[in-house]
Amino acid sequence: MGKIIAKKNSSKKDVITKKASLLFRKKGFRATSMRDIAEAIGVEAPSLYNHIRSKNEILKEICFNIALQFTDHLKLIEHSKQSNLAKIENIIRFHITMMIEEFENVYISDHEWKHLPEPFLTDFKNQRRNYRLHLSAILQKGIDKKEINDVDPHVAVLTILSSISGIEGWQRSGKKIDAKLLEENMVTILINGLKK
Amino acid sequence: MGKIIAKKNSSKKDVITKKASLLFRKKGFRATSMRDIAEAIGVEAPSLYNHIRSKNEILKEICFNIALQFTDHLKLIEHSKQSNLAKIENIIRFHITMMIEEFENVYISDHEWKHLPEPFLTDFKNQRRNYRLHLSAILQKGIDKKEINDVDPHVAVLTILSSISGIEGWQRSGKKIDAKLLEENMVTILINGLKK
Repeated sequence: MGKIIAKKNSSKKDVITKKASLLFRKKGFRATSMRDIAEAIGVEAPSLYNHIRSKNEILKEICFNIALQFTDHLKLIEHSKQSNLAKIENIIRFHITMMIEEFENVYISDHEWKHLPEPFLTDFKNQRRNYRLHLSAILQKGIDKKEINDVDPHVAVLTILSSISGIEGWQRSGKKIDAKLLEENMVTILINGLKK
Repeated sequence: MGKIIAKKNSSKKDVITKKASLLFRKKGFRATSMRDIAEAIGVEAPSLYNHIRSKNEILKEICFNIALQFTDHLKLIEHSKQSNLAKIENIIRFHITMMIEEFENVYISDHEWKHLPEPFLTDFKNQRRNYRLHLSAILQKGIDKKEINDVDPHVAVLTILSSISGIEGWQRSGKKIDAKLLEENMVTILINGLKK
């Protein structure tokens, strides 16, 4: 059994989180033990505890880090000077990119957040709800300005986010997809579909 | 403990399947026992075996019954004389209706089919793949005839089916949605998005 080896610009904690994320996705959070994580890294379980307190802490790190990336991007877009439709397009592109580049972490934050302990669970749920409300608000503004088709903004949010989370199945199946083709085609369908 | 009471036009087997479907969705197929199903119906477990051989048989019933409904509808549409875009619209509407009216069964056939025993598993997987290939073919014909935007038909199938399966979350959350509004809005977004 060796040491935790971190590459340049990444901490040992990052190494643990990354490996844990992969296991949480494949086996589920509940079924993954700290011992499994240690084994996958190639170290003894006790040496994990120098860097991380618990499995819950890893889950918290993953979920809140992903949430932060999405909300930071959303704030940037909200404050930008573009049409509401362009804002939605930017958000869709960001979601697709995250789904492809940060697949494991996005998957965990989408499916395993239910296992977060309180008070983090409530906080996370509020952030999710809030994020969707902000998306709805952008859509509603676009509808009011006749940039976007007159649809229920909540149905539009559902349609957008579900389409993108469908990329999961494709990622899991290990099929080689051209990420750019996927992004362009999905954006074409969703943005044409929303455009007035 | 009483008897299995079936309403008019439904068999005792239907009663068992319906209750099982609800439990499979809530607890998962693996975690649900024949005893749980019997308890939910209000009978002793042995009396289930007069109507159904095993938990696997119930799963098989649910998955293949749903698959049959989808393939029957698809055949009907494929042989109809409408534009390819209209065919796709019809298929989308059928999926949404099934998602709303047959929610538990569609959910099981979408998520729990992995637990089917062989040879049913292979058969079911082939049916799923085949169904998607037929959808892609309709889309491709529509693209060739310039009815549909020039997108990769597989990305289009992914976008369509994922959007619709997103209705799950909404169903589960128990939010009251106007089914007609949901259908019309989702069709507007997807069909406008696909239309050339």
